[in-house]
Amino acid sequence: MTTAGNRQLLLARHPEGRIRDEDFRLVDAPLAPLADGQVQVRTIYLSIDPTMRVWLHPTDNYLPMIQPGEVFRGIGIGVVEATRHPGFAVGALVQGLFGCQQRVLSDGSDLLALPDIAPLPVTAHFSLLGHIGMTAYCGLVKVGAAKAGETLLVSGAAGAVGALVGQIGRILGCRVVGVAGGTEKCRYLTEVLGFDAAVDYRAADFDAALAAACPKGIDVYFDNVGGRTLELALGLMNDFGRIVCCGMISTYDDYDVPGPRNLVQVVLKRLRMQGFVILDPEHDPKEAYAHLLQWAGEGRLQHRAHVVDGLERVPDAINMLLDGRNQGKLMVRLSEEPTVA
Amino acid sequence: MTTAGNRQLLLARHPEGRIRDEDFRLVDAPLAPLADGQVQVRTIYLSIDPTMRVWLHPTDNYLPMIQPGEVFRGIGIGVVEATRHPGFAVGALVQGLFGCQQRVLSDGSDLLALPDIAPLPVTAHFSLLGHIGMTAYCGLVKVGAAKAGETLLVSGAAGAVGALVGQIGRILGCRVVGVAGGTEKCRYLTEVLGFDAAVDYRAADFDAALAAACPKGIDVYFDNVGGRTLELALGLMNDFGRIVCCGMISTYDDYDVPGPRNLVQVVLKRLRMQGFVILDPEHDPKEAYAHLLQWAGEGRLQHRAHVVDGLERVPDAINMLLDGRNQGKLMVRLSEEPTVA
Repeated sequence: MTTAGNRQLLLARHPEGRIRDEDFRLVDAPLAPLADGQVQVRTIYLSIDPTMRVWLHPTDNYLPMIQPGEVFRGIGIGVVEATRHPGFAVGALVQGLFGCQQRVLSDGSDLLALPDIAPLPVTAHFSLLGHIGMTAYCGLVKVGAAKAGETLLVSGAAGAVGALVGQIGRILGCRVVGVAGGTEKCRYLTEVLGFDAAVDYRAADFDAALAAACPKGIDVYFDNVGGRTLELALGLMNDFGRIVCCGMISTYDDYDVPGPRNLVQVVLKRLRMQGFVILDPEHDPKEAYAHLLQWAGEGRLQHRAHVVDGLERVPDAINMLLDGRNQGKLMVRLSEEPTVA
Repeated sequence: MTTAGNRQLLLARHPEGRIRDEDFRLVDAPLAPLADGQVQVRTIYLSIDPTMRVWLHPTDNYLPMIQPGEVFRGIGIGVVEATRHPGFAVGALVQGLFGCQQRVLSDGSDLLALPDIAPLPVTAHFSLLGHIGMTAYCGLVKVGAAKAGETLLVSGAAGAVGALVGQIGRILGCRVVGVAGGTEKCRYLTEVLGFDAAVDYRAADFDAALAAACPKGIDVYFDNVGGRTLELALGLMNDFGRIVCCGMISTYDDYDVPGPRNLVQVVLKRLRMQGFVILDPEHDPKEAYAHLLQWAGEGRLQHRAHVVDGLERVPDAINMLLDGRNQGKLMVRLSEEPTVA
């Protein structure tokens, strides 16, 4: 039993366009007493993902709409600080859909016990080995059916998912071209992550540079951004190409933007465009996890964590993602990791 | 051997926007002497399909670009009028990619011998039992994976492909909603073809009427038109729905039109949008043919032929399709069917 309080980030109103701090409200709520069969978790990290902007729209999506007054949704890593549940010991690390709050009470059914992955850092549960890694692996291998020798284009390539997609593509034997914003990110893709080519979507010659980077066309396009890059990719796709629709971040602040002007290419080139969400039960995580753990252990998957401190920073952190201001997997730290005994 | 001439429709220039007669040229060409191993075919019907407008664009598509000065491409039904080929007898009916011309010489490798399908008319080889029927069957069953109990939306539903798609959907046990232009076509869909509902895209209340006709959402959308109807369908699709991209006729005169404003729904609803062309080798025609022949024999597939006379009418006939002025499978007649002995 503990008397700790619970700071929470509530949705105040559904944002219109760009997120503002006034769209949220911080409150100090009391924590209910721990009931029999329950476990009390202290949040350490909250994952910041582009899909959080999707959750803020005033409609049901692949998850139900969040109502004003409710705690904003969030995926967390935490530590068990009190327990009346036989399956969870104090000090254990767990992951779940905690919501954006300091503490959460659970009956354990929605908690995933995190294995020890040292020497990988705890934050790798969010990137390499968590929903990010699963999204990259299942999207590229299962949805995109990428094969050796094919040209793979990845947008949002310096983002958490995109960076992994490109590296997995290289492991599979694809020629990998990444699209990112700015010369620094592009250099990171080729020099650190081993992409075959990188193209800066902010450069004046973006269209020509993208075409030049894909001299044999595109077989698989892993799309995180939608918009103009999707339009250009449609023009460069090879017959029977696959477009993995993982996200369309360029449209998240405002869904009401015109789509690509050349969607007819889907017919003419017999393309498959397929959306997916890693939460869906069709994605068996075991195969993905085994491969990711092996490749990470072999040092073949580079990753970066970008940590921002304080629950109040969640709204701005989402904007950071939409602006591309982060470098690496973005997360907000609410409390310290437990020190290893 | 024959001394017959050969009237041909040549492409004069690639049309910009709407097709005009000046984009084509009619010529009277001599017919080469029949060589050993060749067969000479007199064209009876030319199929008029929306994809002919695609063939007129000055780019390679799923088939190579047609150059000015070349005979315009066309699928024909014809009768063998001379033969030096052991596999084809005079009087036999054949089908192939004849081109828009009165006669064609062939080594037989590109000719399909047509079986006797009486009491079905010869023109059914173009509709029920030809590329139209194959497109409808393979698109709905193989690409769309339509199942009993699902809601199927079909656009261009009074067109040759759409009318069959809806009827096959009913046979499969789907609830079928068709979109067509005008009250007369809509009445044809429900009263003659047995669609569950029909919606007029020219009506002022199209958006609301479409939503009302799909109270349980849309599981499979068979898209022949693209454009505004695709945008509305994206909004009404159920999770894990399939969009069969058969054609986007609304964009064929001018590819450079904005796409749907809500393409993000592909991600949020985990949709699959897939283009296909019936010429691709992945489509095994045997299963489709067997089902279509059986259903047609049982009187479960209604069809109409819309016949226009004269090779010079081909350009305007394509415009008829784009305008939706035809009623039933459109074809141009160049000569008479042989009388049955």
